[in-house]
Amino acid sequence: MLRCTRCGKAYPETFRLRCDCGETLLVEREGYDFFGSLLPYLDIRRYLNFLPIGGNYLPPAIPAITPTTSVQAGPVFALFKLEYLQPSGSFKDRGTFVTVAKLMEEDINEVVLDSSGNAALSLALYSLPAGIKAHLFVSYDTMPEKLSLLQSLGAVIHFVEGDRMAVHEKAEEFAEREGLTYVSHWLNPYFLEGTKTAAFEVYEQVGVPDYVLVPTGSGTLFLGLWKGFKELEKMGEIARLPVFVAVQAAGYESLCERSKLPNPLADGIAIPQPPRLKEMERVLDETGGLCVSVDEHETREALSWLKRAGFLVEPTSAVVLAAMWKLIERGEISDGSRVLLPLTGSGLKLIEGI
Amino acid sequence: MLRCTRCGKAYPETFRLRCDCGETLLVEREGYDFFGSLLPYLDIRRYLNFLPIGGNYLPPAIPAITPTTSVQAGPVFALFKLEYLQPSGSFKDRGTFVTVAKLMEEDINEVVLDSSGNAALSLALYSLPAGIKAHLFVSYDTMPEKLSLLQSLGAVIHFVEGDRMAVHEKAEEFAEREGLTYVSHWLNPYFLEGTKTAAFEVYEQVGVPDYVLVPTGSGTLFLGLWKGFKELEKMGEIARLPVFVAVQAAGYESLCERSKLPNPLADGIAIPQPPRLKEMERVLDETGGLCVSVDEHETREALSWLKRAGFLVEPTSAVVLAAMWKLIERGEISDGSRVLLPLTGSGLKLIEGI
Repeated sequence: MLRCTRCGKAYPETFRLRCDCGETLLVEREGYDFFGSLLPYLDIRRYLNFLPIGGNYLPPAIPAITPTTSVQAGPVFALFKLEYLQPSGSFKDRGTFVTVAKLMEEDINEVVLDSSGNAALSLALYSLPAGIKAHLFVSYDTMPEKLSLLQSLGAVIHFVEGDRMAVHEKAEEFAEREGLTYVSHWLNPYFLEGTKTAAFEVYEQVGVPDYVLVPTGSGTLFLGLWKGFKELEKMGEIARLPVFVAVQAAGYESLCERSKLPNPLADGIAIPQPPRLKEMERVLDETGGLCVSVDEHETREALSWLKRAGFLVEPTSAVVLAAMWKLIERGEISDGSRVLLPLTGSGLKLIEGI
Repeated sequence: MLRCTRCGKAYPETFRLRCDCGETLLVEREGYDFFGSLLPYLDIRRYLNFLPIGGNYLPPAIPAITPTTSVQAGPVFALFKLEYLQPSGSFKDRGTFVTVAKLMEEDINEVVLDSSGNAALSLALYSLPAGIKAHLFVSYDTMPEKLSLLQSLGAVIHFVEGDRMAVHEKAEEFAEREGLTYVSHWLNPYFLEGTKTAAFEVYEQVGVPDYVLVPTGSGTLFLGLWKGFKELEKMGEIARLPVFVAVQAAGYESLCERSKLPNPLADGIAIPQPPRLKEMERVLDETGGLCVSVDEHETREALSWLKRAGFLVEPTSAVVLAAMWKLIERGEISDGSRVLLPLTGSGLKLIEGI
């Protein structure tokens, strides 16, 4: 079922973004045995038993199980998870895969999303074979190459004047006015069901890390990873959650104090008012976590380090490494810790910039 | 050990490209139990026991196990293997991973390669963290974006006047003159050890396909897949090999009859005189296979179909789908067959072109 994150009201598992009270929803499911429920696949279908979809209507571009690789980084072990090795080049495909499967089951074939970035590319790529028409709301400063790719994938582009929050509002208004399904990944509980599978993989690959550092704007990966580890705890697999660290872009912080000078490199997390903010605050409380803000210079340095280590990622992905360095310097991560650093987006589409 | 593909002479497992007789080499290992030898990883390390490397010196960018997804395509089942979901955006990372691990074990820190494409990008990406200096020989018409990426990864670029075969010759000459290790993926037996792991994955994921269609220039994936299935046969896991179909680019055929009009889209396989040609002919003989040539128009159509199915790949990857359509039309693939189509290279780096 779906359950409200504020008032606790329950709903059946249909496609829905909000509780009647206006607050966000999470999928809730009961009592599994983790290893007994794994399916014999070597891709995301391995975790189908934990997902709120039937499995009869799956998009053809199946997300991969991404490698998790341990690299000694000063006094700690960095566990890089190569989340960018997905069909559209980012971790968003996990969430999109589950969302589109759900939409297909409910026979919904026209949807609205706001995002000029990875979520839009992911939805466009998965919508086309599913026969779903995607209206994508974007700002005027979206890269022309990205727009032409989105259009060639059959998406309908709607331009909006204003900042990221204005684009979000316009998309929701349009969906309401036209009677279409708004699939905002900021709100969509099925999206988090997809991203939670990354935690299941980490657990199978390396057990429970001590820290999880996540690029955090709207929180789709932050909350997904938290939900995955939380379910493992409920299943009795793990005794404690990792400490969650939200890593944010300077100038766009929602959990850390807002910086004056914005970080123009971390566009993937430049979301100053995420709707799931309270949920994220609760995760920081629950796990004894904290928020770290990263500026342009720090992002650039981390990006360069990652490239030299063999990881071709986009700038937003680099903030977690910069944050880890800060925490080590401040003495806030103890020696020998195992620190999960999901690398969220591919650098290949930005070959000139990296 | 290494064994000559012509005279059968054996060599120890050090880095070596050719037999004293001048012919190519393959790695030969004895008697494993397949499932008993798998390691509990969900990435290429799962197959470390089948690889001629110790495992103490592994590059940090670990190749993924790529999803294999079944799509009904007319009267057959296309099994798309998403080989482009790798750190440098192509299946080459499998071969490079094993090669660089071997070079690290032997303390070789300066190497020479010719390729202006995916193999070069892969080697540059894996060499940098391994502390290996890579000399890359390329032709003058290599894309400037690719060159600047290769340079930013620390590779030394050498430009050569002439066609692909001329670049190959110059690279080998340079390596000999300078006393450096030439690591040609066309010749390197360790490269095939990496690409063979794709066959192991396919076997675990979907069993033995009826047909395997492979983009075939120098044959690094064609022979790797063959070697993987061949080892499974020797281990008693499978009773027969799939039928191998070499798919080649019009104008550059080595196994099919040479076409007059060249296919400019399939640059990844534009290799008219591959050194392992005889080995490939033997695979076609052994499995009752054949060669199919694909032209520009057919490549374009298949590429467009793939994009609409959710697979963002580079043009060379599309030739296998075009070839499958041809074989169906000619009645050379029977209804209900399961046809493996490895999708070899990412389309993300070519966003404007696809």
